[in-house]
Amino acid sequence: MYIGIDLGGTNIAAGLVSDDGKILVQDSTPTLSERPIGEIVKDMAMLCERLAQKHGISLSEVTAIGIGSPGSIDFENGIVAYSNNLKMNNFPLAEELSKLTGLTVKVDNDANCAAMGEYTVSGNGSKDFILVTLGTGVGSGIISHGNMVRGFNGAGGEAGHTSLVFNGEPCNCGRNGCWEAYASVTALIRQTERAMKENPDSLMNEYAQKEGKVSGRTAFDAAKAGDSAALEVVKHYEEYVAEGIVNLINIFQPAVVAIGGGISREGDYLLNPIKEYIGSKNYNKNLAQTQIVTAKLFNDAGIIGAAMIAK
Amino acid sequence: MYIGIDLGGTNIAAGLVSDDGKILVQDSTPTLSERPIGEIVKDMAMLCERLAQKHGISLSEVTAIGIGSPGSIDFENGIVAYSNNLKMNNFPLAEELSKLTGLTVKVDNDANCAAMGEYTVSGNGSKDFILVTLGTGVGSGIISHGNMVRGFNGAGGEAGHTSLVFNGEPCNCGRNGCWEAYASVTALIRQTERAMKENPDSLMNEYAQKEGKVSGRTAFDAAKAGDSAALEVVKHYEEYVAEGIVNLINIFQPAVVAIGGGISREGDYLLNPIKEYIGSKNYNKNLAQTQIVTAKLFNDAGIIGAAMIAK
Repeated sequence: MYIGIDLGGTNIAAGLVSDDGKILVQDSTPTLSERPIGEIVKDMAMLCERLAQKHGISLSEVTAIGIGSPGSIDFENGIVAYSNNLKMNNFPLAEELSKLTGLTVKVDNDANCAAMGEYTVSGNGSKDFILVTLGTGVGSGIISHGNMVRGFNGAGGEAGHTSLVFNGEPCNCGRNGCWEAYASVTALIRQTERAMKENPDSLMNEYAQKEGKVSGRTAFDAAKAGDSAALEVVKHYEEYVAEGIVNLINIFQPAVVAIGGGISREGDYLLNPIKEYIGSKNYNKNLAQTQIVTAKLFNDAGIIGAAMIAK
Repeated sequence: MYIGIDLGGTNIAAGLVSDDGKILVQDSTPTLSERPIGEIVKDMAMLCERLAQKHGISLSEVTAIGIGSPGSIDFENGIVAYSNNLKMNNFPLAEELSKLTGLTVKVDNDANCAAMGEYTVSGNGSKDFILVTLGTGVGSGIISHGNMVRGFNGAGGEAGHTSLVFNGEPCNCGRNGCWEAYASVTALIRQTERAMKENPDSLMNEYAQKEGKVSGRTAFDAAKAGDSAALEVVKHYEEYVAEGIVNLINIFQPAVVAIGGGISREGDYLLNPIKEYIGSKNYNKNLAQTQIVTAKLFNDAGIIGAAMIAK
């Protein structure tokens, strides 16, 4: 048994996870991210104790703890090199939680943990798997030849920050035209807002007004109702998503690419046009093809993946 | 000792290679690629015999043979799934050469072999290394966490076919805007020709006339002589090259990226602006930085790398 902790900016979610990646019991506590990090680590330790109690075991019966943390992680040494959200700077997170729990602790990037979680359910036993998470940004966790792609300094796997449009939209990372600047939900909202301005009669305007805001669903909902401007927004957005996935396929030829993030709940409505686009752009028609699926675990992926990384 | 064979469309080059990647003796024979592939394999076996003789050993003292072949390779099974240049289609190259030599034979993509060769001299003991070859196309061989990136079907590692300019120049692979369509020597020549038309007084026209053709050197030579149109061509070309390297850094965070191909002989004149561009686009300023170097082995990389893959 392992404990997986998904350390988020709002909540710390944790679960006791079986060796084959099933959550046995879970719990959470607010992060209160403005606190000193030492307080947060104490709450993580308490959460571990509570999970063990709930399952009627002693904490020492747990083999190891894995933490998925935002930020740049030095995986080998369990150090959070830098995290914007949680004010960690070269913080030895693994060591600190290990002191409080007496257990071995591993720390990885939250996107890597989510990928490892999805890999356990969608990897099909393959050694090459990618999770792309379409959210505020475009996150990616890449398993190549059975190993998480981290690079020599631990900061690898950031496919969201590869160029899609040379000199295109500005990206948070300081470059222009990154995949994230076109395929994130933030980008979709920007694309939706532009189309709403250009098409004041579009259903998107009506839907956004009802909802009180433009969201990642505005264009999708209006497109499903047949709105032509919304159909254009969705078509282009899906092309941006698909184009970036073709890039990853040409580099990694993964057995499976899973698409996660809230927008993946659109299911086949999102997936089918993306699959079609990828098929049309694939130069490699003689060999086995990458399977494109939606993520299955959603919020549980981080907990399960963190546990699997500890394993 | 290993034998490395670089199977090219024009020549078959082979070398006896020491365990630490030094060529002890080498030899070559014309490919005559129009022949039946069986004849070519026989010549490869003869070449192996000759290398052993030249070094005064028996072929059975060689541990294994590695072949770098163009095309799509099924590495696990030593099969050339498809090669345009050499008319191989699901050809069991490893098995056929093994029958004739009595030795274990491994086959890999020629770009992967070149990367493995450069890795032996420029890898600095790191597990994460990339060779980018700027030639007719943009080739890449990627070593991540100590493993060659091949993917589940063996066709991975094709960073040349990742998008740089959405809906940009058409690429051989069927997509538009691939890195290869901007950063290959073929692309540089196209960029040079366009600039020559727009700037009939540019030195590039004079140089091309003298050389009898536009080459990958035309713009570089004219730029070095201070020609402003040529300086523009070189600046943009270097940006295209650098932008694609930043993409690879953000995904792989390799310790070293080596740039190969004839154009890498420009040395620091090519390298320095590329390094500067990469530095300015790098979001990851807190951690160790990827080193950018030019390839060192040139034509020997394929032989040494094939031998190292056999190892």
